[in-house]
Amino acid sequence: MTTEFVGVPADWSVAQTLQHIREVERSRETVYAIYVLDPSSGQLQQVVTLRRLITGAPDASILSVAQLNPPVTVDPLLDQEEVARLIRRHDLLAIPVVDAQRRMLGIVTVDDILDALIDESTEDVHKFGGVEALDRPYMQIGFFEMLRKRAGWLSVLFLGEMLTASAMQHYEQELARAVVLTLFIPLIMSSGGNSGSQATSLLIRSLALRELRLRDWWKVALRELPTGIVLGGILGVLAIIRISVWQLGGLHDYGEHWGLLALTIGAALVGIVTFGSLSGSMLPFALKRLGFDPASASAPFVATLVDVTGLVIYFSIAALILRGTLL
Amino acid sequence: MTTEFVGVPADWSVAQTLQHIREVERSRETVYAIYVLDPSSGQLQQVVTLRRLITGAPDASILSVAQLNPPVTVDPLLDQEEVARLIRRHDLLAIPVVDAQRRMLGIVTVDDILDALIDESTEDVHKFGGVEALDRPYMQIGFFEMLRKRAGWLSVLFLGEMLTASAMQHYEQELARAVVLTLFIPLIMSSGGNSGSQATSLLIRSLALRELRLRDWWKVALRELPTGIVLGGILGVLAIIRISVWQLGGLHDYGEHWGLLALTIGAALVGIVTFGSLSGSMLPFALKRLGFDPASASAPFVATLVDVTGLVIYFSIAALILRGTLL
Repeated sequence: MTTEFVGVPADWSVAQTLQHIREVERSRETVYAIYVLDPSSGQLQQVVTLRRLITGAPDASILSVAQLNPPVTVDPLLDQEEVARLIRRHDLLAIPVVDAQRRMLGIVTVDDILDALIDESTEDVHKFGGVEALDRPYMQIGFFEMLRKRAGWLSVLFLGEMLTASAMQHYEQELARAVVLTLFIPLIMSSGGNSGSQATSLLIRSLALRELRLRDWWKVALRELPTGIVLGGILGVLAIIRISVWQLGGLHDYGEHWGLLALTIGAALVGIVTFGSLSGSMLPFALKRLGFDPASASAPFVATLVDVTGLVIYFSIAALILRGTLL
Repeated sequence: MTTEFVGVPADWSVAQTLQHIREVERSRETVYAIYVLDPSSGQLQQVVTLRRLITGAPDASILSVAQLNPPVTVDPLLDQEEVARLIRRHDLLAIPVVDAQRRMLGIVTVDDILDALIDESTEDVHKFGGVEALDRPYMQIGFFEMLRKRAGWLSVLFLGEMLTASAMQHYEQELARAVVLTLFIPLIMSSGGNSGSQATSLLIRSLALRELRLRDWWKVALRELPTGIVLGGILGVLAIIRISVWQLGGLHDYGEHWGLLALTIGAALVGIVTFGSLSGSMLPFALKRLGFDPASASAPFVATLVDVTGLVIYFSIAALILRGTLL
């Protein structure tokens, strides 16, 4: 925000205002929007653009060239993204910041917003990558500060991911009996993480751009459920083809129950991708609901969330399909 | 770009120009920048801002209020981010687009750039999440179009990730002998992916904001190498603590060689996190070098890249440390 704006009393004429602008032009951030104030209370009454001002008759009142709509104003506490949204929607070059009594505190110009948007977008990508946002260019961050920005989240995610080791321990007997099951663990887990990361990236932006509100979560859930099932189905078919080709082509022997194994992998993929899409899309809503920035839902965070559940889904489906044969 | 700009011949006076602006004001996108053209060739000579114009003496030449610096112009083929960068750097409200003969084709206004930046930032987050960018709000995309936008990358990543199954098959004998090794595969692999995703998100933005050039890749590599080693060391220590606590606390029995196992996991984490940080940071450079958008380096893409190598690193370190005991 800058306080270097042009404000004139509502009883001035066009010529008076133009003369004033000529005098103060060099000391003002912008003179393209002129704020017309009530002479006694100082409240913001109207906005006049310079382009309209120069078309006015010199003796006419400044109000004769004012915009017809009441001025769009913002509260000093409104966040930058919201200010950017208003500036874009109303095609403004600056927006006045007013207090509760509609007295002008300053203006936010489109330049400020441009800078803010670029910073915001850097921050969003950093956060989505699972790093604390850097406030300076990469090469200007000291070695230890860089470590600090990354080690925090990396360790938190690592502690969360430790649950996978616990889940695996829980299934250690099954693993010992059917080592072939372990071969597909990375493949299955990463697919859950990837589908989750896709859904999260879509919903983060939809919430940031106000295309969706908090109360729309169920509409999204109802879309992600079938989407996840079909996406999981596609990957499941790919996996079954892969296993069959390797088995029948003699590239690898998955044992006599390879058909059931392929079915297990396929079914697990449907379950895990569906769970990934659903939880990846619900996470930004949940964060918003809890008062956090939905953009804090990073890809690694989603992957961690999905990994543990993914293992449980995989081993449950395996127990169901392979009981009596491999397990 | 819009062609609705104000262009006046260089032999006009201030008063003539102002009169012209009053006449055409309603039909022009912006009148705040006035483009002074050579009367014979039509080439762009100077730019005059409306704020300076109104301070000029009516009879003076329009050139008397022109900016001192030669006008900043852009080529019609320049990409939007670059145009945004110029507009920001020179604090402009519009930038003229000229052909090879410096004849004006139109202008790009700051409004256009604001919209372009927001679209770009949505696109970047979508791409980083591993989805083809959506051009409309989430709820307006049809079910099948949404599937198409996601299934493509998801399948490509799945095919890449299938290499993990091949890598695992390669180590099947080791896995059968030491099932305990499998318990930590998800933990180790996700740490590689997470550190890679962090590094990628940092470098994507640094390249987009031109903080770094292609030729700076080695400076980044020299920073990521020690950063990765320390980050991997931190996670490695956490893992060794976790295994020791579980073993000594009687929560789980990792066998008589649990100390060597803990050492293997710790060492593997150093190797994998270092590899993740290095390859995650080099990927955007590699993509740029190959003529792709560095922002195509999605978190799932990095994870897939790191996963296969991560398995190889893990089993190689295990073979080294555990030969003669567990393996």
